[in-house]
Amino acid sequence: MKVSVPATSANMGPGFDTLGIALQIKNQVVIKPSKFHSVSLKGEGSNNPALKDNNMFISIFNDFYHNLSTKRRNFRFEFYNEIPMSRGLGSSSAVIVSAISSAYAIEGVELSKKKLLNLALAYENHPDNITPAVMGGFNVATVQDNEVNFIKKDMPKNLRAIVVIPNRPISTNMSRKTLPYKYSKDDAVFNLSHASLLTAAFMSENWEMLRIASLDKFHQKYRMKQMPELFEVQKTSLKAGSLMSTLSGSGSTFFSIAYAEDSKKIERELRNRFPHFKIFTTDFDNYGVRVEK
Amino acid sequence: MKVSVPATSANMGPGFDTLGIALQIKNQVVIKPSKFHSVSLKGEGSNNPALKDNNMFISIFNDFYHNLSTKRRNFRFEFYNEIPMSRGLGSSSAVIVSAISSAYAIEGVELSKKKLLNLALAYENHPDNITPAVMGGFNVATVQDNEVNFIKKDMPKNLRAIVVIPNRPISTNMSRKTLPYKYSKDDAVFNLSHASLLTAAFMSENWEMLRIASLDKFHQKYRMKQMPELFEVQKTSLKAGSLMSTLSGSGSTFFSIAYAEDSKKIERELRNRFPHFKIFTTDFDNYGVRVEK
Repeated sequence: MKVSVPATSANMGPGFDTLGIALQIKNQVVIKPSKFHSVSLKGEGSNNPALKDNNMFISIFNDFYHNLSTKRRNFRFEFYNEIPMSRGLGSSSAVIVSAISSAYAIEGVELSKKKLLNLALAYENHPDNITPAVMGGFNVATVQDNEVNFIKKDMPKNLRAIVVIPNRPISTNMSRKTLPYKYSKDDAVFNLSHASLLTAAFMSENWEMLRIASLDKFHQKYRMKQMPELFEVQKTSLKAGSLMSTLSGSGSTFFSIAYAEDSKKIERELRNRFPHFKIFTTDFDNYGVRVEK
Repeated sequence: MKVSVPATSANMGPGFDTLGIALQIKNQVVIKPSKFHSVSLKGEGSNNPALKDNNMFISIFNDFYHNLSTKRRNFRFEFYNEIPMSRGLGSSSAVIVSAISSAYAIEGVELSKKKLLNLALAYENHPDNITPAVMGGFNVATVQDNEVNFIKKDMPKNLRAIVVIPNRPISTNMSRKTLPYKYSKDDAVFNLSHASLLTAAFMSENWEMLRIASLDKFHQKYRMKQMPELFEVQKTSLKAGSLMSTLSGSGSTFFSIAYAEDSKKIERELRNRFPHFKIFTTDFDNYGVRVEK
């Protein structure tokens, strides 16, 4: 049995804890019944011995598996990870979503994407990464009474994501602590109106509106101060022709959207300027978590 | 020459200073060259002698007319007003938009809707009423460098607005003063996420999402305290089947959206409960300001 989950970029500028989008970079796990419990890990994280057992996955998987099954089978877990860890690309959400999906699939118990989303919410308070991880595409999400309410829009084939991954993380906790506790009415209305305009731009495929609509006053400047090169990344990306360029989640990755025909030039200029960062172009994912039996 | 401008309902719950929608209630002005300046006013405001000269319209009209024309012609202005004044239905925006449009039209000077919008912004700081007044339909708008950026969506034929107009106003200034100067991060994110979800719901015609998406923590409860019956209006409207029910602008009007087939029942139940308020059902307007020569 095989489960794959896409990387996700959340916030997208003004859409704090609300907007998110799925990328064609995936974590995959293959699970086979086995005499003994065993784990192998290839790709991202495999050079870190502390991560080798993928304890977060195994622990969530066991929570659900032991609830669904009275049998006590052992499994071999083979992880193939493309999503960099602690870089704001939704690696935790991918682990949560794949672990829950795997437990249901291995027991042959039906699990709707809507239910999966609400189960995942127990492990991650904000819906902005888990929603695109489950559904794919561009998503607007809110939470009420422990349920995610969301609207999804498929991304078209003529756009690309350009991803700039710095060689070190910004801690999510640290990153949250640098944010204000309160916002002035002006800043609150600024982000509210820009997040709404950004949503309308995605829903109506009005891509020329992205640059203005993606402006933010809630979090980026506070977080980017921890890694001032990111201001240069943003400037370089927009100057080279990106439609928008925002911090991915709480960073440190920077996420840009561009027309396919502009993406190679943008990637090239970013590489020239930031040779020490990992930079690549990828498609969007419109499917979300995928289970193959 | 005839200019008509629709009534508008702004905020729509969480979309503070950002979201607005146009209704099929209109103010109309007929302007004819005449030997002497004269004004007549029928409909809303006609029983108030202080309003009879419609000074705000004449003053804005003159600002533009004297700029555009070297001639000093006199006109007869005939106003037919359906939009109640000071009730949160965009009567000021309608005056501003019609006065500017009239001055350009009477001089035969071309005026794009985009330019009209930016000219109107000089008289009204927020774009949420003037944008639907000019464009019609549902609109998301932000302001940057004195320019309105907006995305419009036409409303479908199967929805209706149910409008409840109390017998007294809430002062807009008073109403703004009751609002907090700052918002907690939780409240700021609440409104941001709900305004974005509401936008997505309108753009994708996902009407079942309106009830949850239209929740607000920024302004309604503060303003509605000045007229506590409004909490009952909202409850009655939602219970009778409205898809959403929110304060219109800064009040005192309450604005609900419903499927056409439910609207008569909702209107009836509101009338039974609030016989002292003016209550009616109307269509949405998708055209905005209209100039006929």
